[in-house]
Parts: sequence; C-alpha cells; structure tokens
Amino acid sequence: MRGNSVGNHFVLTSFGESHGPALGAVIDGCPAGVALSDDYIAQALQRRKPAQSIISSQRAEADSPEILSGVFEGYTIGTPVAVLVRNKDARSVDYRRTTFRTGHADRVWESKFTHRDYRGGGRSSGRETVARVIGGAIAERVLPSTLRIVGFARQIGHVILRNNPDDISREAVDLFITRCPDADADAAITEELLRLKEQGDSVGGIVELRIDGVPAGLGEPVFNKAKSRLTAAIMSIGAVNGVTLGEAFTECLLPGTEFHTVVPNAPGGIAVRSYGIQGGITSGERIVLRIAVKPTATIQQEALRGRHDPCIVPRIIPVIESMAALVLADLWLASRLDNI
Amino acid sequence: MRGNSVGNHFVLTSFGESHGPALGAVIDGCPAGVALSDDYIAQALQRRKPAQSIISSQRAEADSPEILSGVFEGYTIGTPVAVLVRNKDARSVDYRRTTFRTGHADRVWESKFTHRDYRGGGRSSGRETVARVIGGAIAERVLPSTLRIVGFARQIGHVILRNNPDDISREAVDLFITRCPDADADAAITEELLRLKEQGDSVGGIVELRIDGVPAGLGEPVFNKAKSRLTAAIMSIGAVNGVTLGEAFTECLLPGTEFHTVVPNAPGGIAVRSYGIQGGITSGERIVLRIAVKPTATIQQEALRGRHDPCIVPRIIPVIESMAALVLADLWLASRLDNI
Amino acid sequence: MRGNSVGNHFVLTSFGESHGPALGAVIDGCPAGVALSDDYIAQALQRRKPAQSIISSQRAEADSPEILSGVFEGYTIGTPVAVLVRNKDARSVDYRRTTFRTGHADRVWESKFTHRDYRGGGRSSGRETVARVIGGAIAERVLPSTLRIVGFARQIGHVILRNNPDDISREAVDLFITRCPDADADAAITEELLRLKEQGDSVGGIVELRIDGVPAGLGEPVFNKAKSRLTAAIMSIGAVNGVTLGEAFTECLLPGTEFHTVVPNAPGGIAVRSYGIQGGITSGERIVLRIAVKPTATIQQEALRGRHDPCIVPRIIPVIESMAALVLADLWLASRLDNI
Amino acid sequence: MRGNSVGNHFVLTSFGESHGPALGAVIDGCPAGVALSDDYIAQALQRRKPAQSIISSQRAEADSPEILSGVFEGYTIGTPVAVLVRNKDARSVDYRRTTFRTGHADRVWESKFTHRDYRGGGRSSGRETVARVIGGAIAERVLPSTLRIVGFARQIGHVILRNNPDDISREAVDLFITRCPDADADAAITEELLRLKEQGDSVGGIVELRIDGVPAGLGEPVFNKAKSRLTAAIMSIGAVNGVTLGEAFTECLLPGTEFHTVVPNAPGGIAVRSYGIQGGITSGERIVLRIAVKPTATIQQEALRGRHDPCIVPRIIPVIESMAALVLADLWLASRLDNI
Repeated sequence: MRGNSVGNHFVLTSFGESHGPALGAVIDGCPAGVALSDDYIAQALQRRKPAQSIISSQRAEADSPEILSGVFEGYTIGTPVAVLVRNKDARSVDYRRTTFRTGHADRVWESKFTHRDYRGGGRSSGRETVARVIGGAIAERVLPSTLRIVGFARQIGHVILRNNPDDISREAVDLFITRCPDADADAAITEELLRLKEQGDSVGGIVELRIDGVPAGLGEPVFNKAKSRLTAAIMSIGAVNGVTLGEAFTECLLPGTEFHTVVPNAPGGIAVRSYGIQGGITSGERIVLRIAVKPTATIQQEALRGRHDPCIVPRIIPVIESMAALVLADLWLASRLDNI
Repeated sequence: MRGNSVGNHFVLTSFGESHGPALGAVIDGCPAGVALSDDYIAQALQRRKPAQSIISSQRAEADSPEILSGVFEGYTIGTPVAVLVRNKDARSVDYRRTTFRTGHADRVWESKFTHRDYRGGGRSSGRETVARVIGGAIAERVLPSTLRIVGFARQIGHVILRNNPDDISREAVDLFITRCPDADADAAITEELLRLKEQGDSVGGIVELRIDGVPAGLGEPVFNKAKSRLTAAIMSIGAVNGVTLGEAFTECLLPGTEFHTVVPNAPGGIAVRSYGIQGGITSGERIVLRIAVKPTATIQQEALRGRHDPCIVPRIIPVIESMAALVLADLWLASRLDNI
Repeated sequence: MRGNSVGNHFVLTSFGESHGPALGAVIDGCPAGVALSDDYIAQALQRRKPAQSIISSQRAEADSPEILSGVFEGYTIGTPVAVLVRNKDARSVDYRRTTFRTGHADRVWESKFTHRDYRGGGRSSGRETVARVIGGAIAERVLPSTLRIVGFARQIGHVILRNNPDDISREAVDLFITRCPDADADAAITEELLRLKEQGDSVGGIVELRIDGVPAGLGEPVFNKAKSRLTAAIMSIGAVNGVTLGEAFTECLLPGTEFHTVVPNAPGGIAVRSYGIQGGITSGERIVLRIAVKPTATIQQEALRGRHDPCIVPRIIPVIESMAALVLADLWLASRLDNI
Repeated sequence: MRGNSVGNHFVLTSFGESHGPALGAVIDGCPAGVALSDDYIAQALQRRKPAQSIISSQRAEADSPEILSGVFEGYTIGTPVAVLVRNKDARSVDYRRTTFRTGHADRVWESKFTHRDYRGGGRSSGRETVARVIGGAIAERVLPSTLRIVGFARQIGHVILRNNPDDISREAVDLFITRCPDADADAAITEELLRLKEQGDSVGGIVELRIDGVPAGLGEPVFNKAKSRLTAAIMSIGAVNGVTLGEAFTECLLPGTEFHTVVPNAPGGIAVRSYGIQGGITSGERIVLRIAVKPTATIQQEALRGRHDPCIVPRIIPVIESMAALVLADLWLASRLDNI
C-alpha cells in the first residue's frame, strides 16, 4: 500500500505531482445525498491560498476545481466523487535533473524509487495538499453541522497569542493574515516575518486545533483511537513535526493531582483531564490539539532568490483542519456500525 | 473497521479483555522462514513486566505465551502466527457493574457500545499491550538485525536525564528500574516516585525513542509517511498524549537558520535537520522521537487502595518500542514493492 | 496481504494448521449487543461434522469451541470475538517430510514458502473451514432473522434432485445424509457413494444455494457487487471449482427473449431475469447460486488405505452457507453507510 | 468500503458515470520504472471498442486517455498513476427521470441511494469498464512479459468453437469480429447475430480465458486463493453470471478416477487435475477459466429503437483479460513478501 489513500469508510485518494498536468482527489464512501458544488470546493481551496500580502509572496491565482463524478443535480449519488484541479503554472523549465533541492525529499526519493520527477517537489510538494483540502471540505459536509473545527496560530517564533477567547470562529481567525487571532500578536508576528523575509530566513510555530460539538462515541478502543487517527493524519502533513493532545510535553511532568482535578465526591476522588478523548473514544467535550510546524528549509540562497514565505503556518492551518475533518467523517460513519 | 488490526503487510490483530479468559495476537503477513519460539516471545513479554521493585507494585507473575499456529519446527511457514496468553488472575469479583472507574473509558464505552464489560479496563486496559509486545517481538525478527530501537526515560516529573550517551543499548536501559539510564537521575526519580506512591499521587514523563540502522527508503510520500505511521502507532497507546520528531515544540520556534544548519557549499546553502525522515521517507540516519506519557489517573483513593504504580513510563517503554517495530516491519516489507 | 482475513466491516481472521495445536477465528467489527455462546457455536460446528454414517468415515468427535474474548454476560461488547478450537487428534506421526500428498498443495506450498508443514494439509486442509463456520454462525446473528441461507445437493455424480420444493429449510436438508432433500435421489446417491467407496473412487456434485429474505440494497455497483463478493467467498473453499448465478452456463446460450421474459406492458417490454442481484445490488428477491464441487483427489491407494469420504458435497454445504453469511453480514453493515 | 477500488498492492480506483464529464482510473501501488504512455493506453482502450461492423452498432469513436500523474519522461515514478477519459457524447437529453430502463440497475439503485443519476447506466453502465481496461493495461506492464492472458469466445448461442488450437494469441483472436477464432464458427455466429439484431433479440455466450506463463507461487492459501481472486474480479463485470476453473459444472460429475488421471507410479497413484491452481496457489501450468456472459436485457422495443449489439461477448473479452491482469499483478507483487 503506497498510502495515497486515507480513511476506511470515507476514503480520500490523492493524486498528482506539483509540476504535472493536474492534481486530483477521489472520495470513495461519501454517502449519497450530500450537497456539493464546484463553488463550494473552490471556496475551501481559496482559504488554503491566502491573497498575496506583505508576508506572503505566494501566487494568488485561484485553483479551479472541477467535479468529474459522483455528483448529480447538486447532490452526491453514492459513487466516487472525483475532483480535478489543473496545474496552471508548471514552469518545469526552472528545474534541472541534477539539482537536489534543499529540504526537499529529492535524495531519499531517488534512493527509494530510482526514477525521480526533478521538476519540483512532485508528490512531496505542498501543492499535494490541494487534494486534502478538497477531501476535508467534502468531509465537513458529511459531519454534523454542529461540529466545528477551528485552527489558529498560537505561537510563531517568540510571539505568543495572549488574547485567547474560548470561542473562536474560522471567520474570526481568517481576519488576521498571520492566522493569529490577537491584534497585538498578529502585528508583532507580521513585523518579525517581514524581517525574516528580508534576511532569507524562516520560522515555524505552534497551531492550536479546537474541535467542538463532536458526537460522543467516535474512535475505537485499540489502534483506531481518535487521538491516534487525528495525530496520524496531521503528522502526514510535510511541515508538521509534532502533535499533542493539550499541551502534553509540559503537562506530562505535572503530578497527577495537578494534571487531573481532585474532586472528593467524584468516583475515585478525581475528575480526569482528557481533552475530549477517553480510552480513544470521544466524550463529546472539546478536543484540543497542539501542532508543531517546523521552519521551512527554503532559506538563504533559495529564499532570497524565490517566492517563498518566511512562515507557512498561516497556509497550513486549512490543511490541518481538513485532515481533522477527514478523520472525523471516517469515524463518524464508522460509529454507525457500533451496535446491532 | 473496528481497528483491532494494525499494519498493511505485516498485520497484527489484537484480541482479548483484561478480565476475560485470554489475550491474543494474530500476525498475518509474516514472511516464511522467520525463527520463532514460545521462549523468545516470553522474554519479550518479561521486559514489559518488570520484577516487583520499590517503585512498582505490579504483579510480577510471568505471562506464558503459547504459539498456536504459523510456526513449524522453529520457523514461520507463511501462515498466520497466533499467540495466546491466558489471563491468570481475573478477579472479576472486585468489579461492580455500577461503578465507573476513574480515568478509565467506562463511561464513553457505555455510550458507544451500550453493553459494557465492567470487570476491569476490558479492551482499554493496559493489559491489551501484551498483544502489541508479542507483535513487536515478531516484527523485530523480520527487520534487519542491524536495526536497533531503543527507548528510555528522558524526564520523569522534574528530573531530567543529564548523562546522555549517544549510544544506549536496551540492555543498558534495563539496568535502571526507572528506565532512565543515568545513575543520578535514576536515584532522584526513584526517590520522587516513592514519595508520590505514599501520597497516592502519580507523574508522567517524556520518553525518547532512538532508531538506528534504519534502511533508507522506508515510508511513502503522502499519507503513509514514516513519521505519520510511527506517530499513529505510538499515539494508540493509552497513556501517550503527544509525539514529536526531535524536540519539535521548542525547535519549531527557532529561525530556520538555527533549526537547520547553514552550510554555504551545500545545495541551497544549508544542511537540513530531518531526524532521519525526509518527505516521509527514511534517509538512513537516526530517527529520534519524543513521547509524552501523561500522569495516570489512578490517584487518591484508588491509588492508596490498590496496587498501582505512581509512574507507568518504565512499563510503557517496551510497548513504544514494539509499536515502532511493527510500523517499521510493515514499511520494510512494503519497500520491496517500490520498483519494477 | 496474506489473505487470512475476509470482509471489510465484519472481518473474519482465520488461523491454525490442521495438525498444529489449535484453529481459531477472530471476528473484528461485530456490533455490540449480539447474543453469543460457546453452545451456539458448537452447534454450528456440529453441522459441519456429520455423524459417522454408511457414506462417511469421518471422525465424529465434536469440536469444542471456546470464546476467548468479545462476549460478556452472553452478548458481544464491540471488541474482537476470538474463538478457539483445539485440535484433538493431530497424528502427525502419519506424515513424512518427504511425501508430497496427492491432491494437496504440498508442492506449490514448498515452491512458495520454502519451509513447509508436512504434517497434513496445514492451512490448505479442509480443517481450516472450522474458522469459516464459526464466522458464519456469528454473521448469521448479525443478519436480519428473516434472512435464510439454505444449501443442498442438487446433483451428485449422475443422480439429480427431482423433487425440488420451492421452500426448503436447513432442517429438512439435514434429514438426508447426502444433503439431497429428495428421498429417491438420496437413496440412489447413497448407493452410488457406497460403490465408489469400495472402489477407492470419488465423485463431486452441484450445490444449490438459495438466499431468501435478503434486504434490498446490499452490494455496491462496481467491484463490490453482491455477486462478485458471494462468488469470491465461495470460490475460496478448496473443493469449489465454479460458481454461477442461476444456471449461467446453459442460460447464457438462450436468446434474450427466452432468458428474460417478454412482458409487453413492462418498461422496455420485458421482465429481466436477475436471480436477486441487479447491477451488483440485491433487489430483495431470492438469490440463487449454483456451486460446482470437484471430485476429491483422495482416490485409489490413498482412499483405500484411509478414512476418506467418496464425496465431500454433504460436508461442504455448511461451509458454503457460512461464506455466504459472512459476505451478507459485511454488505448488510456496509449498507448503513449508504446515505447521509 | 464502497468498492470502487480493487487490489491490495496494485490498487485500481475507478470513478466516473457514463453521462458525467469523465471517467477515470487511479492506480496506486504501481512500482516505479514501468514504461507508460497515453498511446499505449489508447491502444488498449481501442481493443475494447471494436470498429463498427455488421454485428456491432457501437460508436467507433476513440477514447482519448490522458495520463494526469505518476509518469515522468515515459516511466512511472512510484506515485499514483491517474488516467482521465472525457465522455464525448453524453446525450443526457435522451434520458428521463421517470423512466426505469430495462435491465439496468435503476430501481435497486434508487432503493439503495435514494438519489439517482437517471441519465444512463451511471456507474452501472458498461462504460465504467474503461477504467478497468486502463488498469489492466498498466497491470500487464508490471507482470512478467512472458505471461500471456488470452480470452476468446468459445460458444455464442448454439455455435461452438470447433477448431481450437492449443496456442491462440490475442492478435489471432482479434482477426475475428466475433472473437471466436475459428472461421466456420465465426461465420455461423455472425449470421446468427445478424438475425437476432433484426429481431430485436440478443444472446450470450461462453468465454474461455487462458493464462500461460504464470509464475508458480501466486495466490494465498485461504481467502486470497488465486481462483477466488480471479473469479471475483471477473464476476464484478456486469454481464458475467458465472465463472469456473476448467469446465467445472460437467467435470464435477465425473468419478475422481476420470477427472484426475490414474498414474500408478505417481505419489498416491494419480496425477491431479488442477488447471494451474493448487490449494489456491499457481503451479506454473496454464490456468483455464470459463466465463458465462448472459444475454443482454436490451431487447425488443429498446433494441429495435437503439444502437445496441445483439451480443456483448466480443466487447467484454478485453475487460475480462484486464480484470485477470489486475489480479495477477496484485498477486505477483504480493509474492515478493512470501519469504524473509
């Protein structure tokens, strides 16, 4: 299994190289009766591609998704939903066979598959995430409409989010170009990123992902624990180097009586801290994940030469949200099989 | 898919409740010609069950695995390898239907499956890891003998490993009851755990997992990235709340020029920091993972009443190693299909 | 994938060699709340092992299944159901490493896996079907109670069933030792089998499988068509060499106007003959399959020396029924995911 | 699992409705280094679409496949190979929502998925086989070049192939528009089909599939037997109603001493008849399958009105060959995992 598919019931298959003719997503297992349109998917793709800004030099040209199958008169019909996005600006002329680009998987790819697409990142390119965002957008239509998946930048470099309201919407996050929903932090990060950009340097950060309104009972007790599935999906994003439930690496060092809450009248005398997942199964409470996004390797000569962002955190947030949606849709469908 | 199987080519299926008649592991996809015996598996299970010590009140009684199939005259024959371990001391009399035990998945289980095994943790019990350790032990026989997977306690509570040799063997780690291979830290942690035990408190810690001698080319470019598969497998362990490649949550905040290494003559001007996995594919260099193990919820009344350890880090290390071995054996077999 | 598991949602994993310590079945994906007991499974296994009769020299000794997991207080709890059957009478002393037994897979096995279990059929033995019958029995508990799967011998050698009531129950079939529910044909077959037994010869036959009360909508339009899944499952039985919907090999030669029924007022002017499956999806009407069971290769010297039946059709019928039940339970669960 | 994918290692995912914008195939698991081009695939698709002839009224317009990914400079690179074929002549205007077309799966589809594509067969259309032929063509490039898969019409209606050379090539079969490689039978069938066409009638037939040069050791002992996998794949074609190894339904009625061959000096005194598959595993000898193709339901009013062939046997042969190629490529790759 080469692993270009993800999910057991709601299965996304991703295909396409960054510099080939097109990228695509095929979703098998989408129930019939889900409302879908090219426009809905185009909007989701737009979030992945923020308009050019002072901190982003990315091409703002919109991706135009085309639904090729699985939808009839605006609704899914139980057949595979295939969505195609043509690559518009392949520029393979920029790339040379003999160059192993920094921070890309060129060398390991060549050692693995011998024959290599030297025109760009190929499958390892961030461009592949187009398929993930398409899949995530469709997954969100399958999930209960009360379920909300919201990611935001919690820290970029040394700047930490201070004003952290309990309830943040995607729309609120999208107001900030850094995706850090705190005006002061957003300004400080912007300043920092401009400086790094000038220096041909980069920086990573920590994303917080909050999932509210999750039905209780999603996930399975052993290998398919909700925390395992969510983490795996998010760790399959190239720039992600770590995922935790809550703030695991500091909280794990606390005494149990501080990590959990002593509640003399509760069973066992405590209220357990679980971040929405107990024994691998969702409890219905908010799920909180923290995700470490590493500084990109496109720095120095390459960065100064090219059109690269100093920080990919803002662009990666919709991908993280999509991966969470894909997993939750899969577990949500699976839960229909729990009882006789 | 209920998720009691893990792997695509080397597939472990785990079964059994903590208080039922037996636990078992079935491995389908183990190549023929692998040397296996009851004794070899018994030794692996023994590492999971440290002898009773001042910090552990666990029953030291050995598990007796019985190979039921798949092995003939000492070697696997290409058929499923089934291994059974009887539960000796079920004591279901201790448990009552009406009690939801603290920190266990009882309540979410009941909401999911309606009908619940109230005799203990059931499938959510740490006892289920017996199947994982069996699977991991067999996986290690499939992997190249030069591959070494070694986990150790890097920090427990506020005590950090100081003496950290580059090359640590499993045998060296096993000399310390805390699995922290530094005599001073081991002593300090032991003292701390004794104190917590007396107070009915607990603590977690950070495990470091080092994998050396990994062949280059394992893992796949998109969803089956080596980092994703390793993280998923380790996050499927009950007490694990976070996994990172390297020390991701602090490193992600560094500028790219510090995280990576500026090497003017290298392609792109830098040497990339990858911790052994680039673009999802192993490079042949050491893989380093950090794993956050949360403080157990068996504290206060329950802890003071029972036979619980204040810290499960030492016992969870062989399980972490086993999950890594299972993933790597799976990816190792998969890599045979890379080229025509 | 070595293929010792079958099913996507209701997954049976089979393990065990004919002359090893035990055979076993693990069912993952069985919903919680299904009533199960050792006794229920023992009864299903008993049907697979007809009492010694004039036409069967098989050991009548009963298999004693033990449920190891997944059932608590008489009901499944959503965890894997593992069932073990110990081999009582291994007699490996009869077998020699240097002999390749006639009609067994010994030689291809050795060419495939190098290392071979020479003690008997190993995994290729009919004994492996114990796991299938266990799985089928559990599957039948998951299916609607109105669904009825009944197989019977339609022809053995040159003797054909004449009296063929539209409605035959399993109980009615089991009254006949040949499993041909027609007193005259049963007697003629019995006579024939006695003659063949004396001569060290064998014969095969044609089984008809009728499935009534199938919910409409099971099966999927493309590769998971109900007819494909049923055929695959039944063709995975060693002695089966052919499966058809209806009497396909004669009916395919009819003109369409005879195969189907001309009904001037119907849409398109005809009523289509579908045997209960249209476009791969069950219509709710009776499914009729015909199964060709080849003459066993245990003839001549081996047959005259041993305890072999001249015809395995009667013993194979419960296995065929079990495979059908496994497929239908899987498709039945899958159909819960059809619509949003 | 909705079942639009087939295979475990070499996985074909098929998408597209007959009257939607396009059909497509995604192959995941194709090894790197396989030579592939649009032209090669176009040729394979051409075999599926015979030029208009006296017996075929099918549109002869060629399908134009476009490789979207997975191939670079003429060779696969280990990433998913996606191939797109646009539908040129959708004519959905011909179809009305209220009509349930004869012999199509319209009614069961509506009962299953509620929402239905009424523009034609949708996923149940023969047009879906485009994806299978693409997959099969790629699979043949993965298989050893000495492996030959050749199907031909053995009988159509009452006309049987008489001249039956042991060695028939695809090229030789393609010389006959009926795909019956016997000049006399071809002429007689042509005459018969012209008569049926005029009468608005149809007929089916029996295809023989011969596979030579199969490596020994493909297939697995239990559920993944080569015979089970081949049969399942071929039974997933809409018009196929039966598959047998050899001529199972007549051979199963022979005494074992006639079905097999008595060879006094052989082990056990006989040479077993196996048609190239023993215990589910290929022996290296020729595999012979017979496939029953039912008469189409497009007869009477619909046939007289439309552009339908009286017999689909000739057009279905490349699809049968493709399904066999897909299965064998999958088992061929799987066999790399047999031994340590």
